[in-house]
Amino acid sequence: MSSTVTNDAPEPVVLTLDEVFTLSRNVLLRHGMSEAHADAIARVITQGQRDECHSHGIYRLLVCARSLKSGKVDARAEPTLRDIAPGVLAVDAHYGFSLLAFETGLPVLAQKARSQGVAAMTINHCFHFSALWPEVEAIAAQGLVGIAMNPSHSWVAPAGGTRGVFGTNPLAFAWPREGGLPFVFDFATSAIARGDIELHAREGKPIPPHWALNSDGQPTTDARAALDGAMQTFGGHKGSALAAMIELLAGALIGDLTSMESQAFDGGAGASPCHGELVIAIDPRRFGGDGYEAGQARAERLFAAITAQGARLPSQRRFEARGRSERDGVKVPRALYDDVLKLLD
Amino acid sequence: MSSTVTNDAPEPVVLTLDEVFTLSRNVLLRHGMSEAHADAIARVITQGQRDECHSHGIYRLLVCARSLKSGKVDARAEPTLRDIAPGVLAVDAHYGFSLLAFETGLPVLAQKARSQGVAAMTINHCFHFSALWPEVEAIAAQGLVGIAMNPSHSWVAPAGGTRGVFGTNPLAFAWPREGGLPFVFDFATSAIARGDIELHAREGKPIPPHWALNSDGQPTTDARAALDGAMQTFGGHKGSALAAMIELLAGALIGDLTSMESQAFDGGAGASPCHGELVIAIDPRRFGGDGYEAGQARAERLFAAITAQGARLPSQRRFEARGRSERDGVKVPRALYDDVLKLLD
Repeated sequence: MSSTVTNDAPEPVVLTLDEVFTLSRNVLLRHGMSEAHADAIARVITQGQRDECHSHGIYRLLVCARSLKSGKVDARAEPTLRDIAPGVLAVDAHYGFSLLAFETGLPVLAQKARSQGVAAMTINHCFHFSALWPEVEAIAAQGLVGIAMNPSHSWVAPAGGTRGVFGTNPLAFAWPREGGLPFVFDFATSAIARGDIELHAREGKPIPPHWALNSDGQPTTDARAALDGAMQTFGGHKGSALAAMIELLAGALIGDLTSMESQAFDGGAGASPCHGELVIAIDPRRFGGDGYEAGQARAERLFAAITAQGARLPSQRRFEARGRSERDGVKVPRALYDDVLKLLD
Repeated sequence: MSSTVTNDAPEPVVLTLDEVFTLSRNVLLRHGMSEAHADAIARVITQGQRDECHSHGIYRLLVCARSLKSGKVDARAEPTLRDIAPGVLAVDAHYGFSLLAFETGLPVLAQKARSQGVAAMTINHCFHFSALWPEVEAIAAQGLVGIAMNPSHSWVAPAGGTRGVFGTNPLAFAWPREGGLPFVFDFATSAIARGDIELHAREGKPIPPHWALNSDGQPTTDARAALDGAMQTFGGHKGSALAAMIELLAGALIGDLTSMESQAFDGGAGASPCHGELVIAIDPRRFGGDGYEAGQARAERLFAAITAQGARLPSQRRFEARGRSERDGVKVPRALYDDVLKLLD
């Protein structure tokens, strides 16, 4: 490990990606995780740290340890697969974290997408672990289009409402690009991540009025009042409609909890949300047939028309960070690093 | 026809839904449409008028006549079906309007969704006709979840950009509800419908600055400058990401035109956009299995939590209009009615 520390000012610790993986894996094993879960989660934590999504990097080990302490997560659950239709694979995570369930199901989902053209994978009874972009990127790495979504806890009010019903309900999408990084987005249908409101509350800073409502259902600039009230969706009634769609598709459709139910299930423990997830994979070769290459070229012309006018494709910041991290390693704040090391005690 | 007219002030003409259908069908036949196309389009125009979506009611007959005059639309094209994968049906509209293609493919799509769990229908080489809600509602009427999307013309700039790349790219979704109207939304990924900007321009009224950019790529409140510039997406970079997804899924994936290409194909004729469409159908019975009823109940609890706090479900205004129209008939402005009658000359 090539860390640089002085005695006065805490400088960040520099870790290689292999070191991030090993550290994460060791912490997870130390907290009772099975090897399979520890590997799956450590891989995604390494990806988060690599892409400088700091709340999804090794910081997440602290969240994970708290979730394990809540006693609801099964750290050794073995996912089971069930073929429920030619186009649908159901994975039961048995109240373990979601990532091993995703990894276990992915080869079957990919095979179904190739044979059927379009296929779905439902993941049930999982504790949410990370952003969804690692999953849709893994689908795109197989040459398939990926879509993923899940509910969370009911922090978000519907448009025109005053109380939380929806989760922050992320929607992620990836389009595979020949010989390059995919076109990827992964966004919350809430106006902002809940963590951003928490950060403002900690720092006593005001928030923009379209982020949240106070407990009287009125827009507020007070971050603490927002945490006692409800968040807003992005984009008004359109974002609210999307959030509802995600509750329906990744909750009611797949026989798993809505965000309201997941919140109740948590019972104030503050663990990661327990819910289901819907993943869709589409084979562009089956759709495109002889025109597959032409479709790829058409997509590239679309991307070029966006970037040629100075606009960015989604995820470009992550991809730039990825390049830096693969070359130079990642910088971890000393205090965070120390907190993570304590998890090894 | 129970119209009420005085000689001084033009009162609206009141028509029954049957009268709307017959009038629409006659106009379409008079303009050279085949019976099959005229029936399919007249049905959807009647639905639009019934739900008081005025731009999709009999007003649309004027737009349709203009599109037919452009000479690009084949008013008698017979859609052909091709089974390209167990989960994918491809419908070629052969440069006719989209609705007959949708109607022709729907039974096969529904059968595929029931046998595969999830299935897709691509519609290629069609001229756009209407909103997408009649299509996803038709899917929901079969007890299936429906999703539909299509590009249009490249009027909309990507977030952070200055020039049009995306269409107004609608996304529609319907969830079937036992014994009732479905949960339905259908929204443009642009901040506003293009027609609303045109209306403001005609009336010389300013527009909100988040609707559009002028030709220098700056936000503008001048509706005429907006029409010469580019529209904005709803919801900033998130709406922009969704708009891109629709170009990819309902353009590049399915071997059809992106909005930029559709605009070029139109060549200034001002016809309805020519493009493809992606329709997805999901069978909740296949996903839910023995838990299907529980999933339906879960969805109803979600809807109740929304409406109990005074928020509305999407499409409620349409459904209320539907009730009124089925009971009392529809009111059509006299001038519009006269313009439509002239199409019969």
